[in-house]
Amino acid sequence: MPTYKAPLDDMRFVLHDVLDVAQLSALPGYEEATPDLIDAILEEAGRFCAEVLQPLNQPGDAAGCTYEQGEVKAPPGFKEAYQQYCAGGWPALTADPKYGGQGMPHLMRSVVEEMMCASNLSFAMYPGLAHGAYHAMHTHGTEELKDKLLPKLVSGQWGGTMCLTEPHAGTDLGIITTKAVPAGDGAYRLTGTKIFISAGEHDLTENIIHLVLAKLPDAPGGTRGISMFMVPKFLPTDEGRPGTRNGVTCGSIEHKMGIKGNATCVLNFDNATGWMVGDANKGMRAMFTMMNGARLGVGLQGLGLGEVAYQNAVAYARERLQGRSLTGAKNPGGPADPIIEHPAVRQGLLRVKALNEGNRAFAYWIGMHIDLEHRHPDPARRAESADLVALMTPVIKAFLTDTGFESTNIALQTFGGHGYVREYGMEQFVRDARIAPIYEGTNAVQAMDLVGRKLPEGMGRLLRRFFHPVSAEVEASRADPALAEFVEPLAKAFERLQQATQGVAMRSMANPDEAGAAAEDYLHLLGYVTLGYMWLRMVKAARARLAAGADDRAAFYEAKVATGRFYFAKVLPQVHALAARIAAGATTVMSVPVDAF
Amino acid sequence: MPTYKAPLDDMRFVLHDVLDVAQLSALPGYEEATPDLIDAILEEAGRFCAEVLQPLNQPGDAAGCTYEQGEVKAPPGFKEAYQQYCAGGWPALTADPKYGGQGMPHLMRSVVEEMMCASNLSFAMYPGLAHGAYHAMHTHGTEELKDKLLPKLVSGQWGGTMCLTEPHAGTDLGIITTKAVPAGDGAYRLTGTKIFISAGEHDLTENIIHLVLAKLPDAPGGTRGISMFMVPKFLPTDEGRPGTRNGVTCGSIEHKMGIKGNATCVLNFDNATGWMVGDANKGMRAMFTMMNGARLGVGLQGLGLGEVAYQNAVAYARERLQGRSLTGAKNPGGPADPIIEHPAVRQGLLRVKALNEGNRAFAYWIGMHIDLEHRHPDPARRAESADLVALMTPVIKAFLTDTGFESTNIALQTFGGHGYVREYGMEQFVRDARIAPIYEGTNAVQAMDLVGRKLPEGMGRLLRRFFHPVSAEVEASRADPALAEFVEPLAKAFERLQQATQGVAMRSMANPDEAGAAAEDYLHLLGYVTLGYMWLRMVKAARARLAAGADDRAAFYEAKVATGRFYFAKVLPQVHALAARIAAGATTVMSVPVDAF
Repeated sequence: MPTYKAPLDDMRFVLHDVLDVAQLSALPGYEEATPDLIDAILEEAGRFCAEVLQPLNQPGDAAGCTYEQGEVKAPPGFKEAYQQYCAGGWPALTADPKYGGQGMPHLMRSVVEEMMCASNLSFAMYPGLAHGAYHAMHTHGTEELKDKLLPKLVSGQWGGTMCLTEPHAGTDLGIITTKAVPAGDGAYRLTGTKIFISAGEHDLTENIIHLVLAKLPDAPGGTRGISMFMVPKFLPTDEGRPGTRNGVTCGSIEHKMGIKGNATCVLNFDNATGWMVGDANKGMRAMFTMMNGARLGVGLQGLGLGEVAYQNAVAYARERLQGRSLTGAKNPGGPADPIIEHPAVRQGLLRVKALNEGNRAFAYWIGMHIDLEHRHPDPARRAESADLVALMTPVIKAFLTDTGFESTNIALQTFGGHGYVREYGMEQFVRDARIAPIYEGTNAVQAMDLVGRKLPEGMGRLLRRFFHPVSAEVEASRADPALAEFVEPLAKAFERLQQATQGVAMRSMANPDEAGAAAEDYLHLLGYVTLGYMWLRMVKAARARLAAGADDRAAFYEAKVATGRFYFAKVLPQVHALAARIAAGATTVMSVPVDAF
Repeated sequence: MPTYKAPLDDMRFVLHDVLDVAQLSALPGYEEATPDLIDAILEEAGRFCAEVLQPLNQPGDAAGCTYEQGEVKAPPGFKEAYQQYCAGGWPALTADPKYGGQGMPHLMRSVVEEMMCASNLSFAMYPGLAHGAYHAMHTHGTEELKDKLLPKLVSGQWGGTMCLTEPHAGTDLGIITTKAVPAGDGAYRLTGTKIFISAGEHDLTENIIHLVLAKLPDAPGGTRGISMFMVPKFLPTDEGRPGTRNGVTCGSIEHKMGIKGNATCVLNFDNATGWMVGDANKGMRAMFTMMNGARLGVGLQGLGLGEVAYQNAVAYARERLQGRSLTGAKNPGGPADPIIEHPAVRQGLLRVKALNEGNRAFAYWIGMHIDLEHRHPDPARRAESADLVALMTPVIKAFLTDTGFESTNIALQTFGGHGYVREYGMEQFVRDARIAPIYEGTNAVQAMDLVGRKLPEGMGRLLRRFFHPVSAEVEASRADPALAEFVEPLAKAFERLQQATQGVAMRSMANPDEAGAAAEDYLHLLGYVTLGYMWLRMVKAARARLAAGADDRAAFYEAKVATGRFYFAKVLPQVHALAARIAAGATTVMSVPVDAF
């Protein structure tokens, strides 16, 4: 059975040594978020995830959710764990103190989410979706709705969902057919069918707040005719308790490849009562508040699963004795050497390690900019951070889930045949990780968001928010010859990214399919360069600690430098293939007739 | 529910237009294998796979195998399908006529295996392993054993297995502990435990022939002390019927990620009676007869699953309406365009198509050289083919399974959220495909076989068997400017492969870890170049047919050229990343201390 230990040292390294998280406590409203408090929260979250959530992960996969006549039960133990989760105040961590929240920086949620996804992704999705509903309501809801509902979400008493997809409308929300008809009393009556609703029905909470996309009777066609509605499972009484059952029912749950402990529901709305959130026909904008947060959260799922898979693969590779090292026995007293001595095994593990640690630094860096975007006193700084977050949201979602899936597969492979057998738990990580490149917008959709929307915005303004710090970091590091092995490959990769950007921009003006055909390769290219940037910063931070005499922690910082070295030598070269593919353009993709497939 | 149709046009194109399969009927013993007979066999096999095996694939995954007190039942319908399989004479297809076989070329088995793996991998493994046992016995068994057992395997009445792995010994067979003690009457008594035995126990056949690796009491240590034994489930009577139950029992079956319709067994040998196959302490050599065939077969599993996943993804991408083409509506009368119009979707599908068709040409090319190796009248030609087959066996196994797994994942992604739901069947292809990079020697082991054994052999003699035809094809094609877009990328990639070969060879002499750290990247580099070579040949064959006036078949040949164009523009560039990684050497991999992971 697999184990998990929150990688607190690695997390603290990123937060303190690389990102200087202490600066957050200088922001208005975050005065309490001192490094000491942050460390205390990390430790407590790590303990909760390792001791409460992780032991339920494998049994939850085996038992799955059960459906009976519209009622859904989460796997055994989930309800009790959820009660502990609420008792610990975790739903309130980053919520608004006005509604009972603790007002911690958003960044803290990223860190805790990584741990929760690593220990039990199916479980983490229940409160994860509730938080998304909280966030969208908090931003777009009326004061009346907020006063009534937000305390319930912040305490964890009520859950939440986002209801977008319909059987014929997934990526293409413009063609949804769920209708919302004004009831005359300020409320609406919703009718339609939504599918793939994660946490759509379950027994963890006494009520569930569905945020539903639907069309008003007079709505314009396409996405400009979509509005968002709050549809509770039970209509709240005046005292704020669950009252009459609303006209929304769960028709069935899906049998899926993974995340079996989370109920993926068909929800039927039959004259269900709802209230509009945000403005009429502006539902997509409101939903994107939720979606952007969810996309960053899905990226953290990829990271979390990559981390837990890594931990178990390393443990196995240290213990499993098989064959002899090519350069002579390393365990001469035993029947064979630990497989971690074999180049192929350690190469796979180092790849996962370099990706995990790079992805973590990337995600936390952007997580911190979300806080700067909302709290920095200088509007210019807020705008800069908002640009960077907007640019990187699709990259975090797609790059962290693609590499996260790859990492779980490398970790499985480390186990050989045992990796394919259920009891070792490695194949569950692969199955669970496989959803992340699909939901909250497939990774192809993320890539189109990046290339088709984010790159052109403000004539490349968003991209410059990333290019400037990379240029600055490269230039500042070139003076030190000891950094050449890190800086030079980054500079070269960055150059390829700049060339690819120009090439795609030029060709797309003449033919939008050029953007479409380049998009996924471009997103990956940007992802690898971003991790190169993060690794240069990590290497420099580690070297600074070593230079200052890290003493008993020297091995830790030396490992950071060694992992960075591996990243530049063995992972970053993927940019050469990506740049060549992008340069090859769209013609070979688009000129093949449909009948030729 | 997914469907499958054997890609007969693609198969015939490779066999006739690219490989000129007619030359096989000029080989002694293959006189009957005329192109007409070959086509008739393909059609009949395709019909059987599509109508009998494929409909059992998804139900077999859902039902799995059942274990009760040592008895194992394959999923419902498998037994009846197996009876049809035998009634159709399929186990005899390529077997020796002396034992009831039909004596068809080995290549025919490759083609039929591709179809069987595509339609139902779990089923295909039962007769696949029996064929492996047939092959090892045919090569290494005594005349007495062969006369007694081979007719049973050729008719399909009896099954077969290969028993190598033990709980503590997978890759490292040198440390197995199963013992074989002479019984005094020419037989042996075997005691020990074998795990991960595919088709180790089931209800499809009246008897099972286990080929077991074990150690004689006085055996030297390591792999040089391993012998191979034939251990039947039931001891054959003099009349060749299953007699007394032997001391081999199934202790349990594994619960796995996929291939759930095939029983993966723990087999306990308790004083089981067996007979030696081949010479004492030469069991590894005998087993490798079986393993090499099995490795090529596993490669075909990757190809078959890539093909069936592709067919279903294309069908879905043609039907699913979602969003509008970036260059204007392609289905203006409908609510949206088919997703195959979107660059990301068609790029994914083209990648799978280019890999499948390239892998098929590669596998059949090597399959034909197996026939040339065994039947060509000229010993020099036999030796050349043997070299090429030895070189490419690990490449076929690893490259076709790595790309096959990738292809099933791309196909799943095409379905969006529906790909993750069991009823659509796409996630089963991914789960089934995930075993192939693991068993019959992990792909890392294949890579070490290639780089550590096959490359150095005869000072690079094996590799020259591949380099010479590639050089010749490149040179012969350079005269035609219309081929430049295919030839130039191939020539460049081939140059990178040659440089990488020299670099790895040089560095490995000083440090064997250099070979180990480069091995998997090198194998992939060789794989992509090989597919480039196959694609150049396919493009030329298609152009020749077009030039000759293919008329009603023009679209088919034009699609070949277009897919080849895509391969060189969008798939082959991976060689740039691989070459850069190989050039980066082993230091960053090996210098990280074990404690730093």
